[in-house]
Formats: sequence, structure tokens, C-alpha cells
Amino acid sequence: MERFAIRGQICYSESQKKIRTMERGYVVCEDGKSAGVFETLPEAWSGIPCYDYGDRLIIPGLIDLHVHAPQYPFRGLGMDQELIDWLNTHTFPEEEKYGDLAYAQKAYAIFLDDLLHSATTRACVFGTCHKDATLWLMEQMEAEGLAGYVGKVNMDRNSPAELCEESPEASAEATESWILASAGLSNVRPILTPRFIPTCSDELMERLSALQKQYDLPVQSHLSENLSEIDWVRQLQPEASCYGDAYRMHGLFGGSCPTIMAHCVYSGEEEIRMMKEQGVFIAHCPESNTNLASGIAPVRKYMELGMQMGLGTDVAAGSSLSMFRAMAMAVQCSKLRWRLVDQSQAPLTATEVFYLATKGGGAFFGKAGSLEEGYEFDAVVIDDRKIRHARPVSVRERLERLIYLDGDASVDAKYIKGKQVI
Amino acid sequence: MERFAIRGQICYSESQKKIRTMERGYVVCEDGKSAGVFETLPEAWSGIPCYDYGDRLIIPGLIDLHVHAPQYPFRGLGMDQELIDWLNTHTFPEEEKYGDLAYAQKAYAIFLDDLLHSATTRACVFGTCHKDATLWLMEQMEAEGLAGYVGKVNMDRNSPAELCEESPEASAEATESWILASAGLSNVRPILTPRFIPTCSDELMERLSALQKQYDLPVQSHLSENLSEIDWVRQLQPEASCYGDAYRMHGLFGGSCPTIMAHCVYSGEEEIRMMKEQGVFIAHCPESNTNLASGIAPVRKYMELGMQMGLGTDVAAGSSLSMFRAMAMAVQCSKLRWRLVDQSQAPLTATEVFYLATKGGGAFFGKAGSLEEGYEFDAVVIDDRKIRHARPVSVRERLERLIYLDGDASVDAKYIKGKQVI
Repeated sequence: MERFAIRGQICYSESQKKIRTMERGYVVCEDGKSAGVFETLPEAWSGIPCYDYGDRLIIPGLIDLHVHAPQYPFRGLGMDQELIDWLNTHTFPEEEKYGDLAYAQKAYAIFLDDLLHSATTRACVFGTCHKDATLWLMEQMEAEGLAGYVGKVNMDRNSPAELCEESPEASAEATESWILASAGLSNVRPILTPRFIPTCSDELMERLSALQKQYDLPVQSHLSENLSEIDWVRQLQPEASCYGDAYRMHGLFGGSCPTIMAHCVYSGEEEIRMMKEQGVFIAHCPESNTNLASGIAPVRKYMELGMQMGLGTDVAAGSSLSMFRAMAMAVQCSKLRWRLVDQSQAPLTATEVFYLATKGGGAFFGKAGSLEEGYEFDAVVIDDRKIRHARPVSVRERLERLIYLDGDASVDAKYIKGKQVI
Repeated sequence: MERFAIRGQICYSESQKKIRTMERGYVVCEDGKSAGVFETLPEAWSGIPCYDYGDRLIIPGLIDLHVHAPQYPFRGLGMDQELIDWLNTHTFPEEEKYGDLAYAQKAYAIFLDDLLHSATTRACVFGTCHKDATLWLMEQMEAEGLAGYVGKVNMDRNSPAELCEESPEASAEATESWILASAGLSNVRPILTPRFIPTCSDELMERLSALQKQYDLPVQSHLSENLSEIDWVRQLQPEASCYGDAYRMHGLFGGSCPTIMAHCVYSGEEEIRMMKEQGVFIAHCPESNTNLASGIAPVRKYMELGMQMGLGTDVAAGSSLSMFRAMAMAVQCSKLRWRLVDQSQAPLTATEVFYLATKGGGAFFGKAGSLEEGYEFDAVVIDDRKIRHARPVSVRERLERLIYLDGDASVDAKYIKGKQVI
């Protein structure tokens, strides 16, 4: 059994309402899992290696529930359009390039290096429809020690010629071949990724559903992000009672099929009820929803309903891989929603968004997103010395300011499943 | 006559609708002012020193029209309240400490060092009501080569005992003594700073008005930021036709008194008309207005009306001194306002917010905020090599992504009035 401890200024989420801090505490790792957080190291473990990070902050690795790796090359650019136009102008032309494996490798290497040096330990990643590029992304991500799910995207209608897969069969065959080719990976696993309803025919969805059952895979997609998109889905799938129902009809909406749906800005009562019943995870992507002028999701309502939920950066509709920025934007958007839309829904607090970015999204991975006993040992050591204050700041305050000022901090060390990756 | 040139990837705002870029261009400095931007150095100047920054970006120094220096120690903290509660809980207790010059020096040194290393070259700064601390801030700011206006704050009512000046006379006397003491400074000049109407009696405003005329000083304050604040002003000054009128009645609202008013989130038609007639500058502070859940100012409307306007970080209601972040938030808030409030007012573009952050706010300083001939030679050299893309990016795109990703860039060199300060 491999055991070690790390020591520092510890901070993690106990619940949506409570952040726990411990000054100069220890987190013990036993075979890749946390054996607990301690003020003094229990005597039984007094001999184990201990890596002391002094005054550095130690937090759980952050969980990015929604990010598009191939869009990283145009992050921060082309922010003057709404969803559908933005897809056609910026996204699809870039994603086409990933048919060229050499380009994909060059682009994904930058994405992965930046992800590695961010505070994110686990991510749910969209690739492109290209099997080889997506497989390379997964292998390289695993090689770097990162964890998460990566999806080869499916799209067989309403897509530019270069990205539109030839037929439902061809799309499903490529998908199965990609699933089989990724069988040797352990920390980075495949996730079925129909892009969204407008680009996936019923037949394709049926085939994906069969693959889901056969290989027992999770699913990720997009839901109720933008008003034009929702209208379009209504026209394409008039038999569905709501956008979510268009996934549910094919068995790709929670239940025995673990599912993440990004956005849910405009989910109605029926869709919300379905998501809750089926345990569908919501990836709240506030920066993306702002940059594409989609709107602001009713996150307070989702929290009150006890929905499964985490945060996503949604690069490149979100500009940055920083999950701290996603947290800041989640608080900020909730304040504007409170002010401009509905004063019955209180703004989110720093405590709540830290929960969403750790335990909230981490639940999709089983026990991830905390330093508490039994959780995967995913920890990030943060150097925030560049953020100087004239007065003493508590560990709790140092976390809070990171949410707003993470550009001035850096990740010193990172552990995933007990393995140090940087 | 002192002449030199700097060379690099040049980018500046020609107008609200146009950014001009020049690859490997030259900006020539003559006695502290720009002598123009050139593709090749004119023969007459072929012998002048030229500092070549290679592939680095060169942009005009950014202009922060509204920032509270004494609030810097709690930036990024205490973001869960609205304006009046936030003032009482976080702001006033911190500002009280600046009666102790030693604390002020310690805190202001951090503020100034971070400001120096930011892309901001000129700022309009609030101090506290403490004369000595404010004077030290100004002297130190000037010593570091920074430019701008700094105000000793006035407040003689509705303020905590420690900050409430004894009487209008005492406040005015301290203000005059501070004005005289700062007479030796050249790049950092005094600006009259009544905190806002709720904390300033009529008699104090009259005395400030007399000082304004006597010493020909500009004025900065807050206007129509928050609904409760506006109600309060209405109760305190029932004779004023609007909040802005409460300044105007005392001659402290534009015209012969150059004036910056921060926020203007809820300015009505009459207030807007007064501001326009009197040439009052609006300091739009989108992050602050979001963090304090104040609302979103109608910036598109102000632009269409041709109002004088720039951006402010409003630290510490804004978390960061980064004017790039202020630009990003200005675009983002305008998109949410478009979506949630008024679809007749188009969102702001990157081009427009860059204008606001440079020429827009720079106009308060005469000719500042551009690299064009005749402007003060304020230039910032930016190293953005950490932002890696898999495809070529133009100079224009590099500027645009900085707005969203400035945390990954750094300032390599900075010139103010032709003097290199870092």
C-alpha cells in the first residue's frame, strides 16, 4: 500500500453551505484515495513521507464538466456572435482542421499543457468527429496524468460537409472503433458525445443508444442553451415534449446512462423534472452563456431543487480554462439575474460556487472533488504570494480572492488519484 | 529636444469603430509626446535611438477612470453585499486605517507596485479623507512615474465617526491644505473628491465649489449607482431634480469644472441631458456594478448620444486593477443587458471597449490614450507569449484575446509622457 501525506493551508467544501479550512493541516493519501484530513498526523502514519508545502493553499482539484478541446485555438476571439452563427463562423471551420492529425497534435498539445498547469484535475472534454485525433487527445491526456472523459463528437446532419459524418452507420462504426481503441486507457475514458440534437439524426441517436448500452458509457451533450437553438429543435423533433425529451426518447438522458447536459439556460418545468428524476448532471457554463449572449441559467432554482450540477468553462465560448473564472462568473451572473430577472432567486455565494466546482461536478466521477476520507486523492497546491495584502488574510479569504484574482496565482503542484502530475 | 522610437506590433484605437494595427511599426517620441506612428522610420529621424520590442505588442497606456486605492487590501473579498451594506461592512472599516500613515504607506506601496506593473498608465484615484495618507500616495505615485489625479475624500455626514470630518469648515480646510501641499507635483494632480451626496452636506459642497473655482480643479464622485442610494439621495436633497442635479446645484457637475462621475447605471433622461450638456465624463465600471449587484449601465445609449465616457476598475468593488478585465466585463455585461433588458441596444464590441479604455477615458487628460501624433507618449509593451495558439494570430486578434486572457500576459515595458517607468 502506498502512503504519503501533503501539508499546507487546507481548504475544501464540506457542503453547499460550508467551506472547511485547516491551517497547516495534513491530507493523507492511501493507494490513490484520501485517508482523511488531520490537524496532526495520526501516530500510525508518523513514518510516511510528508511533502510540506508551507504556507501554500491546498484545495481539491477542480472539475471542469464541459470543455471543447479543439476550440482552444480560438479562445478569446470572435466573441461578437450568438450560438448558431458562432458555430458556423468560428467553430466548425476550426474543428474541420482536426481531420489532419498533425494539426490536431500540435493544437491539443497546447490545450493539454495549459490544462495540466491549471487547477483542473478532471474534465469532460468534447473532441471533434475525428476518431484518430480524439484518440490521440485521450492517450496524451492519460500520459500526462490527467483524468476525465473525452468524446468523439457525432454529427450527421445540419453540419458543414467537412464535419458531417456520411451516415448514421458510418458515425456509429467510427464511434465503436474509437471506443474499442481506447479500451487500454484507465484514467481518461470515452464518453458518447452527440453534438446536439440539431446535428444528430434519430437513427444516429438510436445507434448511439445501442452503443451506450453495449459498452455502458456515459453521455454528454448540450441542452436549452439559446432561444433560436430551442426553436430549431422544436421544428426538428416535433414529437419531443421538450428539448431534453429529444435525448430521453433515445435513452440518452440519465437513469442508467450517466449524462451531462451543458447550459440548461432555458429548461422549462418538464425538462427540469425529467433531469431531476433521471439524475442528469447540469454543466453550468456562465462565461459561455454570457459571451454568446445566451442568457443566465436559473442556478439558484436548480440548487434548491437538489439537481446534480457542476461548472464548465466551455472553452472556447468561454475564453479561459480557469475554473476560478468560471466560479467568479457564476457568482456575477447570478447577481445580474437577481437584479434584472428574478429577485426571488438569491445570488450565489463564493461558498456555493466552490462547491459546484469541486464536489458538485466531482460527483459525476463518483467520489471526486474533496479532500475528505474516501475521495480520490486529487489535490492542487496553489502559490498565491503574488496577491499581496496589507493586512492578514485567512485561508478562507485566500480561497475567496483566488476566485476573482487567479490570474495572479499559479499551480505549484498537482496530484490526481494520488499521483503527482506537476 | 529628446527623441527616440519604439518598435513592435502596434495596435491603437482610431475611433469607436476602428482599431488600427501596424506590424513592426515605429512610434516616435518627441519631448514626451508622440510624433506619429510609421511603417518605416522617416529619414530625418534615422539616427534617433530605437528600442526594438520585436514581436511584442505595443498599445497605448490604458486609462482607469475610477479606482479606490485604500480598498485594494480587500479586493476580491466580501462580495456578497450591495452598495450601502458593503460600504459599512468592508469599505469604511478599512478606510479608517489610513489615519495611521504607517499602515497607509504599507498598503499604498502594494497598490502602486501592482498599478505600475499593470497596463494602466493614468488613473483617477480615490484616497481616503486623510490628508497625509493621500499626499503620500500622490508623492509616491509621481515618484514611480505614474500619472493621474488623486483625491482626498470629503465626507461630513452619514459616515462612521472615525471617517466623518468634524465640520464642513474642517473638511474644506484639510482639503485646501492638501491642495497646497501637492503643488509641487506635476504628473499626479489633485482632484476634488466629495465621496457622494449622502456623505456630503450642502455646506461642504459649497466650500468645495469655492475651492474648485479658486484652484481650478477637476472633480470626481459617484452617481446613480444603486437604487437604494438613489432613493436616499432623493430624501436627502428633495430640492434636486435628480441625483446629478444635487452636484450641479453646487457647480460641481461639468462645464468649467471637469467632472468624472462613476457608474451612471440608473441615470434618467434629465440627468443624461445635464451630463451631455456639461461634458461630464462617465466612468463605466461594469465589474463593480456586477459584484455589488447594482445593475448594468446603458452604455450603448451613452455611446449613441456621444457622451464622454471611459472605463473604471472601481477596485475594490471591482476585484482587479486589470483594465483588460474591465473591457471584457463591459462587453459581457452589455450582452446580458441586450439579452435580458433591451434588445434595441446592441452589445458592445471589442473595438468599442478598447476605445473606451484608451481614447475614451484618455480625453479627460487632454490628449492621452492613443499613439497618434500629438498625444502624450504613453505606451505599454506587452508580452503575450504564454498565450499559445496552434494557428497564426493577427495583431488585432492578439489584442482581442488579451481582453479575455490578460492573466496570461505581462507588461514588459511602460512609458508615460515619454519616460520609461518599467
